[in-house]
Amino acid sequence: METQTVKTVFIGSDEDQDAWMRELRLADPELDLVTVEQINADAMDPQSVRYAITGRIRPKVLSIYPSLRAILSTWAGVEHLLSDPTVPGHIPIVRMVEPSLTQGMVEYVTCHVLNILLRTDQYPKTGWSHPQRVAPRFARDMTVGIMGVGVLGSACARSLVRLGFSVNGWSRTPKAIDDVRIYAGFDQLNDFARNSEIIVLLLPKTTMTVEVLNTRILSLLPRGAAVINVARGELINREALLDALDCGQLSRAILDVFSKEPLDDNHPYRLHPKVTVTPHLASVTDPRTAAPVIVENIRRFERGEPVAPLVDRERGY
Amino acid sequence: METQTVKTVFIGSDEDQDAWMRELRLADPELDLVTVEQINADAMDPQSVRYAITGRIRPKVLSIYPSLRAILSTWAGVEHLLSDPTVPGHIPIVRMVEPSLTQGMVEYVTCHVLNILLRTDQYPKTGWSHPQRVAPRFARDMTVGIMGVGVLGSACARSLVRLGFSVNGWSRTPKAIDDVRIYAGFDQLNDFARNSEIIVLLLPKTTMTVEVLNTRILSLLPRGAAVINVARGELINREALLDALDCGQLSRAILDVFSKEPLDDNHPYRLHPKVTVTPHLASVTDPRTAAPVIVENIRRFERGEPVAPLVDRERGY
Repeated sequence: METQTVKTVFIGSDEDQDAWMRELRLADPELDLVTVEQINADAMDPQSVRYAITGRIRPKVLSIYPSLRAILSTWAGVEHLLSDPTVPGHIPIVRMVEPSLTQGMVEYVTCHVLNILLRTDQYPKTGWSHPQRVAPRFARDMTVGIMGVGVLGSACARSLVRLGFSVNGWSRTPKAIDDVRIYAGFDQLNDFARNSEIIVLLLPKTTMTVEVLNTRILSLLPRGAAVINVARGELINREALLDALDCGQLSRAILDVFSKEPLDDNHPYRLHPKVTVTPHLASVTDPRTAAPVIVENIRRFERGEPVAPLVDRERGY
Repeated sequence: METQTVKTVFIGSDEDQDAWMRELRLADPELDLVTVEQINADAMDPQSVRYAITGRIRPKVLSIYPSLRAILSTWAGVEHLLSDPTVPGHIPIVRMVEPSLTQGMVEYVTCHVLNILLRTDQYPKTGWSHPQRVAPRFARDMTVGIMGVGVLGSACARSLVRLGFSVNGWSRTPKAIDDVRIYAGFDQLNDFARNSEIIVLLLPKTTMTVEVLNTRILSLLPRGAAVINVARGELINREALLDALDCGQLSRAILDVFSKEPLDDNHPYRLHPKVTVTPHLASVTDPRTAAPVIVENIRRFERGEPVAPLVDRERGY
């Protein structure tokens, strides 16, 4: 078998490398899989490496493998690979789509949309009052707007629809998702914002999406709206978000991603009473379910079969 | 029309009476609907009252209406009516089943099962660590055991199944719910407990269910299990629950109902770090959706048609 002789390098972080190596070997015992450390220790020729499996890597690390046929990202977001000038433009990059990543995102988003609906942050320490007792709000009374309706966004949309929420989706191009009202392109972004009481950010980070949530868009949301960011920190203008929270235009922000991670302990988000900070855990690729996906994609490249989802460098994701 | 001449009395609490009267009149403008205050003020003959619509009422209030044909409860739980010796045993009592009550319960239970799964109470105020980053748990990794699989319990079960949870149900008698493993009767309670990591209490309060969650059953749960009580406070033995939380057998309790409500500000539950207290708001009957149900049931009584769900006094609910 050809895959026996094709070398694949895993370039991960120290903390998760063992789990990845174990699961990739389980998924394909014939794969000639090595770590960067093994290449160095055994003085292997980097020319022999055909595939690179990468998470968040430092710039230029891939430049020492001149014979790469493809890069397989363990992350759904690949902006760090696209901004690295040493990653050759002709090499296909595969974004990570795997069941656990999707499932984790659905669980996190569903959980926090429900927390916002039910105002669980307002449970009284003493006494017996809560808005849900006097004027209960149900899922059917609330519209969630999901920005980015790819694999993750549309799975979240379906979960929320099943719970009874009204769901809007904002997408670069028109799409059709059952029971979801799609707004397409920047022309329809204002209308989308005016009609969405909870914004869920699930967009890739591109030149078009950086600070898409700015003062102007935040001001269009219904008063008291909430924001959940599970995509990339750079999608939000920080000052605009804090101002909107302080003046009551926004009632809550649940933030899992930040332009600099880990988030500083003294960052303004940390102490803000209306902000919940979570340490980039909304959805984590699970090597147990992702390794079979990667191994199958390498086989497909070897057989010359189509592989998806391939990154479109023009589009930026 | 006969309903025009049949008098119905609404006996509610001051706080919600206006909303109920408005919605009941909207649902059937021909209904001869009065409040207790109107009967007294206009010196009406209580003999003329055929139907009583009641929430949580004081004992004996119904004894002044000797010609009652039926009692229509605005609450799902009716134990206060069954323990009132002045409520004649031959008068049918209809429990409340209405879409908002069910939907509210589904939203609360789904929200808090997800909060337990995702350990949202452990989000760090500083730093960047959380168990979900290192060893994420997914819905598929967790089994929820629902005690009581009537209308509310089975709706909650279906919602959790759709999210990927494994779901057990414990029921007085055998039932069939798709993708839910049913344990029936006290013979199978031990097995149910051993296989349920989150217990959701949705049982009626009867002589059989009081303190069903006691030291013995709590000790059978997998270590670190959690409890959600959205039924009645009396279903739990308080000392057993606090002991189980203190020794680590239970990791969390989310309690919406208590034997005495409102819960005292200095009750041990209030300050316990592993207990979340919510002020009986998990699910509240919504007059907008419940009034049409009540009005239709009165029409059915008048026409001699079957009405459900009727309380079975032997069974106790």
